[in-house]
Amino acid sequence: MREKFLYEKVANSISHQITKGVYKASDRLPSVRKLSEDLGVSLFTILQSYAELKNSGLIDSKPGSGYYVRARPTKVLPEPETLTVESAIKNYKNDELVSSIHEAFLLKDVVSFGAGVPSADMLLSKKINRILSKIVRASETAGLLYDFPPGNYKLRNEIVKLSLKWQGNISPEDIIITTGGIEAIVLALKATAKPGDTIITESPTFYMLLQVIKNLGMNVLELPTNPKDGIEIEALKKEIKKHKVSACVLYPTINSPLGSVMPEENRIKTYNLCAKENIPIIECDVWGDLYFNHPRPKPIKALDETGIVLYISSFTKTGAPGYRVGWVCPGRYYKKVKELKYMYSISTPAITQLVIAEYLKSGAYETGLKNLRKTYSMRLSFLSECISKYFPNGTKMTRPQGGAFIWIELPEQVDTVVLRDQALKEKVSIAPGPLFSTTDHFPNFMRLSCACEWEPSKIENAVKELGELCKNFI
Amino acid sequence: MREKFLYEKVANSISHQITKGVYKASDRLPSVRKLSEDLGVSLFTILQSYAELKNSGLIDSKPGSGYYVRARPTKVLPEPETLTVESAIKNYKNDELVSSIHEAFLLKDVVSFGAGVPSADMLLSKKINRILSKIVRASETAGLLYDFPPGNYKLRNEIVKLSLKWQGNISPEDIIITTGGIEAIVLALKATAKPGDTIITESPTFYMLLQVIKNLGMNVLELPTNPKDGIEIEALKKEIKKHKVSACVLYPTINSPLGSVMPEENRIKTYNLCAKENIPIIECDVWGDLYFNHPRPKPIKALDETGIVLYISSFTKTGAPGYRVGWVCPGRYYKKVKELKYMYSISTPAITQLVIAEYLKSGAYETGLKNLRKTYSMRLSFLSECISKYFPNGTKMTRPQGGAFIWIELPEQVDTVVLRDQALKEKVSIAPGPLFSTTDHFPNFMRLSCACEWEPSKIENAVKELGELCKNFI
Repeated sequence: MREKFLYEKVANSISHQITKGVYKASDRLPSVRKLSEDLGVSLFTILQSYAELKNSGLIDSKPGSGYYVRARPTKVLPEPETLTVESAIKNYKNDELVSSIHEAFLLKDVVSFGAGVPSADMLLSKKINRILSKIVRASETAGLLYDFPPGNYKLRNEIVKLSLKWQGNISPEDIIITTGGIEAIVLALKATAKPGDTIITESPTFYMLLQVIKNLGMNVLELPTNPKDGIEIEALKKEIKKHKVSACVLYPTINSPLGSVMPEENRIKTYNLCAKENIPIIECDVWGDLYFNHPRPKPIKALDETGIVLYISSFTKTGAPGYRVGWVCPGRYYKKVKELKYMYSISTPAITQLVIAEYLKSGAYETGLKNLRKTYSMRLSFLSECISKYFPNGTKMTRPQGGAFIWIELPEQVDTVVLRDQALKEKVSIAPGPLFSTTDHFPNFMRLSCACEWEPSKIENAVKELGELCKNFI
Repeated sequence: MREKFLYEKVANSISHQITKGVYKASDRLPSVRKLSEDLGVSLFTILQSYAELKNSGLIDSKPGSGYYVRARPTKVLPEPETLTVESAIKNYKNDELVSSIHEAFLLKDVVSFGAGVPSADMLLSKKINRILSKIVRASETAGLLYDFPPGNYKLRNEIVKLSLKWQGNISPEDIIITTGGIEAIVLALKATAKPGDTIITESPTFYMLLQVIKNLGMNVLELPTNPKDGIEIEALKKEIKKHKVSACVLYPTINSPLGSVMPEENRIKTYNLCAKENIPIIECDVWGDLYFNHPRPKPIKALDETGIVLYISSFTKTGAPGYRVGWVCPGRYYKKVKELKYMYSISTPAITQLVIAEYLKSGAYETGLKNLRKTYSMRLSFLSECISKYFPNGTKMTRPQGGAFIWIELPEQVDTVVLRDQALKEKVSIAPGPLFSTTDHFPNFMRLSCACEWEPSKIENAVKELGELCKNFI
């Protein structure tokens, strides 16, 4: 434990000096032996530190010659503007595109910028499967019987403990366990709206949300969302007066694709507006624990005195995607959501709930999160640098405040749906802009994910390839 | 293995002699020691045989005095008639009743005739959790990553092997793994019908099916279903001409609550009728492997040349309810179901799929089924006997051909919704008739399940209690 702390500390110091320009591009870093002697720590610790820095893309090694600072671009690309989205109620029409994105999940040997799916190296596997073994050893019938809604009590209890850090005033009786975050979204929408109703979303937003709303026979009213700080309050104010809105689905902490975070004053305004008009807020916080700074923003749920917020989170981005354990805290819609849960899947598998409960209790989740945040943050920095270096003039990109995504605006000649097909032929996948909206505003946008398998040289080459393909459009 | 075979054989012989009247009610059975000597098998084997017979309710023991044949009722109650259901398109209105049934799942110390939920003693736990341990030991990352639709290949491959016994002409590429049977039903309905459409079901039928159809904004057209042999073909023929029907949801092998089985000629007629009119058949076969005789009836899917049958099964009744592993073979609706699966839960948890795949491969599933069938069959016999003995004159009941349920028609004065509340106070739960229909035809019906925790004397007392409560209505 102490050893790990040390290598991280060393890596952070070096990273700090590189960022501050103490060590510049192509500078040789101190040899492993020298640094080990200077700092009085083991060679192994230094090797670990350098490995971490190399993995993050900050430094490179030359065999037999040592470690060097990688060349870093000097220009910083601007952020995309908020687009003025017309306030039309629309329906999602990109099902085919979503299908093709799903097909691409299964491809091998592809640099997978397109999927938001954590790769094997982002997992806390040993720990989780060790807990699983222990549970099965302790009880022969563990996980074999139904665990009816609201789901495992121990797990709900651990979730309440976690909520302390965002001042969640919730108890285990407020929580319903779901099969991942997506089921929670389906249940929350069904509990608050009916077919034909209008749902407000951010624009752009997570494509599966748009697809689910359509699938439930509901309509979408997208509101302009700023890459820096989330959905625009003025637009929200105007539109909820103009239309009968049944629910707002928001990702206040880390919108996908934007990586944006809504400031606290806007959260308060949003809550007050919706509470006044009695409009439920479905708050998706599946990426919230991967906010890069400290403390993490308080969810809108923390303000909720009237029970209008249906707060959703999951452990699929932050622990075990394949376990499919999510949860919803549905406020005044609790009873309805619980009954709906029976209708959609009766109960969430029991064994995975048991494991996540123990995992949370062990404290390993918090440690794991810390590492994940650092990894994602470093990867996004590296990805941003590669984009700055290789993409055509006029490219803009977001500065994600958490999560795994970067949102890129390309020169308007670039058609990212076409680009996607071209890139796949070169074994690189992307998520084209039109996926993320019911409008036609994002033909020249795309989302890149850094949750894929990560090898800096491969990543750099893939970005270079994408840059070349983009330039062909111009 | 040989020892087990022996005790089963001995128990079967004795059971046979009791059924044939060789040993009559109150007859003393041979002592354990004598039978052990006569048969040349261990005392332990005989004790096991007697324990099994006692558990099934056929025999009883008196401390210090040996084993006796239980008193058996002489009368056999008639079966309920098919009710002439008027062919009105209806909507389910018993959500509150369903909720209260769900609440009762969580009660302790209740003789749980109300739930169709296997109890701990109906599980093949040791084997399954041993497989789970092995999988986790073999791979640190087992089950941690998403297993995207259509789901685990190995599992789909094993399912195909299983389908040999019903001459299923399917391949792994035809199958999509789901989170239990209920999710498969949701996906199948969404793939074939839209809100406002009409769905044909059996009457009575599984209450959650009726609730799901309503929840999806669809309407139900219930058709008269015979407790002996399933949905009536003439009614089907007439109604699909009269109404625009989007899908038929059938339980041809073991309807819940009836326990009925549709004869093969009717399966052929049903298929031909629907194929001609291009009406998809959603065939739920979740209880089919628990048909008591041999060979099991071939599903309608086995006839399907046009891809109109969406065949659904699961391992929740027959292995590990808490694992929530089901599957659908959606024929020509494959692509649509696969995309819908993403929208409802993205993917079924990976670890449970891996375990079920290994479990099937080990051959233990088939052995387990054999035991389950025997247990359910013996329990239902015992339950029937108790009902005959204690229920008021005029009671009718089905003779289930498989599964865990018996459907009881009480004298018309009995209101089973009221009975349910009264029974719960006496720590007995039942499923009242109105649960199983959108019509008002079953106020004096109820379903009893034998999947609950089973102790013959407790069961007999509970049935006696129910009988007394029923008599109070008359």
